This record gives sequence, structure tokens and C-alpha cells, in this order.
Amino acid sequence: MSKSPVSHAKIKKFTENNFTDADDIIAVEEPLEIRIGYGLAELRQQKNISITMRTPGNDFELALGFLFTEGIIKSKEDITLIKYCTEANTIENKENIVRAELKENIEIEFKKLERNFYTTSSCGVCGKASIDAIKTVCPIPSNTQLITVGSNIILSLPQQLKKKQHVFEYTGGIHASALFDLNGNLLLLREDVGRHNALDKLIGAALGLFSPNSHRNTLELTIPLDNHILLLSGRVSFELIQKAAMAGIRIVCAIGAPSSLAIETAKEFGITLIGFLRDSRFNIYTNHERVIL
Amino acid sequence: MSKSPVSHAKIKKFTENNFTDADDIIAVEEPLEIRIGYGLAELRQQKNISITMRTPGNDFELALGFLFTEGIIKSKEDITLIKYCTEANTIENKENIVRAELKENIEIEFKKLERNFYTTSSCGVCGKASIDAIKTVCPIPSNTQLITVGSNIILSLPQQLKKKQHVFEYTGGIHASALFDLNGNLLLLREDVGRHNALDKLIGAALGLFSPNSHRNTLELTIPLDNHILLLSGRVSFELIQKAAMAGIRIVCAIGAPSSLAIETAKEFGITLIGFLRDSRFNIYTNHERVIL
Repeated sequence: MSKSPVSHAKIKKFTENNFTDADDIIAVEEPLEIRIGYGLAELRQQKNISITMRTPGNDFELALGFLFTEGIIKSKEDITLIKYCTEANTIENKENIVRAELKENIEIEFKKLERNFYTTSSCGVCGKASIDAIKTVCPIPSNTQLITVGSNIILSLPQQLKKKQHVFEYTGGIHASALFDLNGNLLLLREDVGRHNALDKLIGAALGLFSPNSHRNTLELTIPLDNHILLLSGRVSFELIQKAAMAGIRIVCAIGAPSSLAIETAKEFGITLIGFLRDSRFNIYTNHERVIL
Repeated sequence: MSKSPVSHAKIKKFTENNFTDADDIIAVEEPLEIRIGYGLAELRQQKNISITMRTPGNDFELALGFLFTEGIIKSKEDITLIKYCTEANTIENKENIVRAELKENIEIEFKKLERNFYTTSSCGVCGKASIDAIKTVCPIPSNTQLITVGSNIILSLPQQLKKKQHVFEYTGGIHASALFDLNGNLLLLREDVGRHNALDKLIGAALGLFSPNSHRNTLELTIPLDNHILLLSGRVSFELIQKAAMAGIRIVCAIGAPSSLAIETAKEFGITLIGFLRDSRFNIYTNHERVIL
């Protein structure tokens, strides 16, 4: 049976100045590793080409489309078979590794494939392994001191972001990450076409920079940012929660929806994850005790 | 002088059933390569860690944040200097390569960095090099036969997408790619948390699959898809236009905004690029002659 593209979560809904318990449907996000088998029959070799965070479903199409659009194959006929890699399958990474068998005579330009790229998913291709990989560099904080923030402060954040999001205002085509203190004061804002870049810029700014190459950090921020609120302008993927966890952020709000793996990761790291923060409403996906009326 | 995060484009605006010429402000998208310098002073080495498509601005913060959130450095103090890599700078890739100098005693877990990852940007880090890299595998089509599509058909596409976008309907958290014929009939729809994955799935489906692993492609689609319209549910980055170009798609519509490099790439490959397709309006960024009233 194929994996489902959606999963379920118990959430706290904030509407009309009150909380209610609700069930929510979440888009599933899980890693897919694409491998190719190549070479002569008696000397068959295997290479990992890509790991992408995807929603399960149409995985063979995804592999085929990826190999084609990246120029690795010229047509469907270059491939003899696509299948799930069963030898590597455990319960957790079931159907998360796809192997495409190239025809024996297909030559691969391996130089083009030889770009080294760091990914936190490198140790495994199931969500759990991805979370475990973060833990090795980002231990779950033992400081369990409860910080709280009022729902009115949460509701005030999008409007402040909107006022200051200059590049978005002009272009309508950019993501933002914003850092607030627990009183809802905007401290830092960074924008980028890539949402992971906007967050990296924000955390980089919080770490502080080096004159004379750039302005010094005059905000006196220190990592971990455990007394701050992060606001994301779009949807929340695993990668964004991973970066927030690394910076020690305890409260993450987003205008858009979170993915399944974002919720799991937030749970694991004790992060309060809020989504659909718009029009005087929001949903709390994890650790709702930090938000008070 | 730093690069600007926005650029300008001459566009055709479609509103109230008519075209007008207009200037538009676009979010800039360009590659940034992050390198680290490491090792003892007399044996200094360099390694490329990442290429990301980003909006220029706060590049040192981006590098610092990336190195920290990916666990490569533990604090700002692990780095002695961040600078643009001047020796590699040409006019075109000016300020697109950043090098961070690690302290001599910092050990890097190179195994973690040794994930091979394919990227079409591998040959260079300026937009032009990225476009040239596509051309090597995807020649600009010589078939210049003019296909046209009515503005009324363009306007009808989002509603059709919305009706069929089931996972989005449930979760609000997913991207879609949809393929239409020139009469505006929806042929294929794929959804994913990753917009590049949704498009790879669509193109993979158009290429056709292999029984018994999956359903056969019964649509009789053939690549190039030069008599079709692609609709994207969100914003348009370079990567999406690159994939569309590989599949020979001539008309790309998006609900959201395109990036600067998406527009340049569409121009280069003769693709008609339409953005902000919503509320009975749209903007045409390139090759507007394919859209008629």
C-alpha cells in the first residue's frame, strides 16, 4: 500500500479569542532518495543522485522527471525499470528510496554529478533519521523554563511584518523571516526568494558579523534565541524548523501551513509551532502551553 | 556597491480585458556559492560547501547562518573572516562567491559534507552561467511556429486547478503543477510540499511510466510539450523555468510572482511567462505575442 500524502494532527485552534481542540489534516513531508543503477550487467553499480523532501505519491514519476529535467537521461527509453529499493527498506524508510535502472549503454557525466552538497538528511532517508541527525549537533535543551506569550501578541506579528517587508511590498515575490522579543517588538527582518536563505540570514545576523566587511550586530542578541519569537511569511518545512532548533528558538509562527515533518521536529525539540496565523486566527500544532489568552 | 535585491522589467499587464504596458519591480534571484577556508596557515585549503539561489543582500549573514544552522561551525568565534572571493570575481558573478575563513584548529566532519548532489549551477555562479549550463543539455528550440492562446483561456486556469487540487484543499500546505492543452483542458495535476517536486512529478508523468510498477501513461503525451500550458500554484524560480524548458513547454503561468532569473531564463528559451494570474488579471513578462485577446 502506498504512503498517504496527508496525515492527521491534534491541534489547538485560536478563533474568536478562544481556544478549541480540533483535528487537522497535514501535508506529509518525507525524504526521497533517488539512486541510479548503471554499467554493464556483470559490473552493475549504484549511485545516489539526490535526496529531496517530498510529499509521498507518484514517486516513480518524480524520479523519472528529476532525471530528465536535470539532463541525466535524454528520454524515458534510457531507463529500463524504476522500483523502490527494497534491500534498504526498514519500516521507517519504506518507499523512501527509489532506484532507476539505466540501460547498459547510457553514459553518465559523473563530473556534473560531483558537486558536494551538505545535507542534514545525509545519514538516512526517513523522517526519524533526519530528526536524529539534527540531535547529534543540536541536543534537545534541558532548560525547560516555561516562557509564555499572549495570544494578542501573536496576533499582532503579521501586521508588523507587513509594514517592514519592503522587498515583498515592491515585488510580491519574496519570503521573510522576522525575529520578535516576547513583547512582540520586531528586532530583525530578512527577506529572500528562498525561505531557508531568509532564515539563515536572520540567524547569521543574530550571531553577529565582522567589521569592516559588514555592520556589527548592535542588537546584542545571543544564541540561543530562547526568549524570542520567529515569524515565517510562508509555509513551514522540516528544514526551517531544523534551523530554528539550531538557533535555540522556542516559538515559531507562520502565516502558512506546516508540513508533517515540521510538526514532528518541533515536537521533538520542544518548539511551540503555530501556523495559519492570519485574520485574527491561528492554529497551535505543538507545545501550546506557551500561548496564553 | 552592493547588488540590489530588486530589478525592473517591462511587462504587459492584462486587466479589464485589455493589455497595457507597465514597469514592474522583480525580486532578484542569483546563485551564491559558500566556500570555507580551513587548515593550518601554511597549508590553507578551500572547499565549496553550498550553492543556493538567493536574493542579493546580507550575503555574509547568509553564509554565517548557513554554516551555523547546518552544524559546520559551533559559534561565530569559529570564523575569523568572511569576504567575497575576489579572485574568482568577474563582472557577471561579482559578489556571488563568499568565503568564510575557519580558525586553524576547527575540525570539519568532511564525511557529513560528502553527499554528492547534482545541480545545474555546477558550472558557475552567475545567472548567465546557470542559463548556459541548461543550454548544453537543452538547446533553444528552432521551431518558432507561433502558438497562441486567448486571454479568456488563461484566466480560466486557476479555477480549474482549484477544483482538482485535493491535497491543498485539505491541508492548505502544498504546491501544485498542472498541465493544460491550448484549449484550457486540464490534462495532468501533481502536488507536493516542494514546488520543484510537483513539476518533476508532472513531467515524469508526461514521459510515461512502467507497468507493473505504476499506471501507464494513457494520455499519449509526448515530450516536448510544446502545445501545452503549464500552471504553477506559487512563485516562479529559475529552477522551475529550467525544468519547463527541458520539457519543451512554451507557455508557463503562475499564481505568484516570478524571480529575475526566471524571467531571464524564460526570455532565453522563448517561453511565454505569465505571473500574478488571479482575480481576472495577469502580467506577461516575456514573449507576450502568444497571448491574444
